[in-house]
Amino acid sequence: MSYVPSQDLLQQLRSGNPWALGRLISRAEVGVPEARQALAEVYRSAGTAHVIGVTGVPGSGKSTLVGKLAGALRARGEKVGIVAIDPSSPYSGGAILGDRIRMSELANDPGVFIRSMATRGATGGMARAALDAVDLLDVAGFHTIILETVGVGQDEVEVAHASDTTIVVSAPGLGDEIQAIKAGVLEIADIHVVSKCDRDDANRTITDLKQMLTLGSVVGPKRAWAIPVVGVSSYTGEGIDDLLVRMTAHRAAMTDSELGRERRRRVAEFRLQKTAETLLLERFTAGAEAFAPALAVTLTGRGTDPYAAARQLIAKTIREEYSNELA
Amino acid sequence: MSYVPSQDLLQQLRSGNPWALGRLISRAEVGVPEARQALAEVYRSAGTAHVIGVTGVPGSGKSTLVGKLAGALRARGEKVGIVAIDPSSPYSGGAILGDRIRMSELANDPGVFIRSMATRGATGGMARAALDAVDLLDVAGFHTIILETVGVGQDEVEVAHASDTTIVVSAPGLGDEIQAIKAGVLEIADIHVVSKCDRDDANRTITDLKQMLTLGSVVGPKRAWAIPVVGVSSYTGEGIDDLLVRMTAHRAAMTDSELGRERRRRVAEFRLQKTAETLLLERFTAGAEAFAPALAVTLTGRGTDPYAAARQLIAKTIREEYSNELA
Repeated sequence: MSYVPSQDLLQQLRSGNPWALGRLISRAEVGVPEARQALAEVYRSAGTAHVIGVTGVPGSGKSTLVGKLAGALRARGEKVGIVAIDPSSPYSGGAILGDRIRMSELANDPGVFIRSMATRGATGGMARAALDAVDLLDVAGFHTIILETVGVGQDEVEVAHASDTTIVVSAPGLGDEIQAIKAGVLEIADIHVVSKCDRDDANRTITDLKQMLTLGSVVGPKRAWAIPVVGVSSYTGEGIDDLLVRMTAHRAAMTDSELGRERRRRVAEFRLQKTAETLLLERFTAGAEAFAPALAVTLTGRGTDPYAAARQLIAKTIREEYSNELA
Repeated sequence: MSYVPSQDLLQQLRSGNPWALGRLISRAEVGVPEARQALAEVYRSAGTAHVIGVTGVPGSGKSTLVGKLAGALRARGEKVGIVAIDPSSPYSGGAILGDRIRMSELANDPGVFIRSMATRGATGGMARAALDAVDLLDVAGFHTIILETVGVGQDEVEVAHASDTTIVVSAPGLGDEIQAIKAGVLEIADIHVVSKCDRDDANRTITDLKQMLTLGSVVGPKRAWAIPVVGVSSYTGEGIDDLLVRMTAHRAAMTDSELGRERRRRVAEFRLQKTAETLLLERFTAGAEAFAPALAVTLTGRGTDPYAAARQLIAKTIREEYSNELA
């Protein structure tokens, strides 16, 4: 099959074609330059959906919660998009989170679109691609988009926070509240969820989290929004409706407030930074192929050093103020 | 205590001061610009030591082997440097490999210098810093420098291969040979070590690896050097002497051969690339602080898109051919 131009796919996407949606997400993930103009247009017309970041330490029950949340939103007639950022490993090949959800009852529902993205080989690229995917889902008419990441690694935590509302999930019995601090996810929560709240020890976790939230340093920058702690049981269904109410309330609190503006500005800055890193390294890598081999030979003879050679390489590929080092 | 200029530390390093060595490695790791000139000089006078990359999947017995190897080299009167690249995690905070060695009998031997470097927050930066650390140990008079990485993740594998001789460690009973392939470490081995060869199932692993090496695709680019498979037991000490012989033989085979030249060129190119990425992102990040906030505000209003804004940001910070987009 011949290559379908991204602009054509974009047109099909706007009329709800899921195949076009999948193709464009793939092009965003790979970083196909031809798709950039379409992705740029998508960004400009996105911004309608409610984007929910969900994160938590491994074993916290994130994926189960995401499945239940998606089911509850579907029951209200909403279309739900799920973007799951999977930690890559040479063993699993990533795609753990998405697969787990895919196997659930949502698998055959056309009102749910699930996409796993692996983090392999892309530091800033993963964040950029995931946020492009969120916009694509937004423009395709999905009402709520869940961005799920394992709360390990700075980039993954930041991606979960590049949303309208960030949910941090803790499970009882893991010494969770401390894990959330260690993982650096405590301070990004707009809503705390304690999963498995049918368990006896869940109340302890809820109490611990609430106590921690009373510490000024955590509440500090979010005074316009009191961060709730919601107990949820995916087994009994308890708490899911409460969580939906809190999500809607948080969105309303952010809509026309200084806190919301500041948050959106911060998200935009993160996204800008990640996109710029992608473009910069892409351009450099392309240019370096021409010049690096010869410089490497000089380097092996110790006739130069890595820093001087790197400056020369940058000068040759990214013409800028290193230009006085050009031959 | 006031900041000691890196050039002064370099002088102390050359006269064997271990404190100066530690300070300079720290500055390489953090990426202190003031230390660049000293590191550049270090590179130009390095190249004497035998640099051994050691990698393998988790549980393969790498760290134990490194400890035994260091002990055997010490018994021959060699000074041994160990740079252990630890996978970072918010939980462990890295520093797993190095700590394990540090607890062994080598801990108080002044002829052994052990340094753990975490991978946290630094993709290319980790590789650059580790190779700078190797040069520092080289100039400080260490005869053999072991660069140990967990064989997971592209960058970590490449660092282990940025050496004179690369050892890939497999343990029996893990289905190891296949793990080595999956982890992408099979093809970088100059010497295969099968650890725990006092176990009954070690022979099976050795046979499997040897069979795999007879496949042309693996042996292909290395015909001038027949890759050996060495069984080693850290428990009985079996195989350690054989391994030392193979290491020396490999170095000799690389010294004045086309294969060796090509390998050194490839290592230099990898290092150049990683150093350039560090300089490029550092410069960009510094420049971006001034311009990103205003662009982010425009972005939140969807008056631009991340790609156009990123190009503008790059134009403002790294003046180059994007200049026609400057206001």
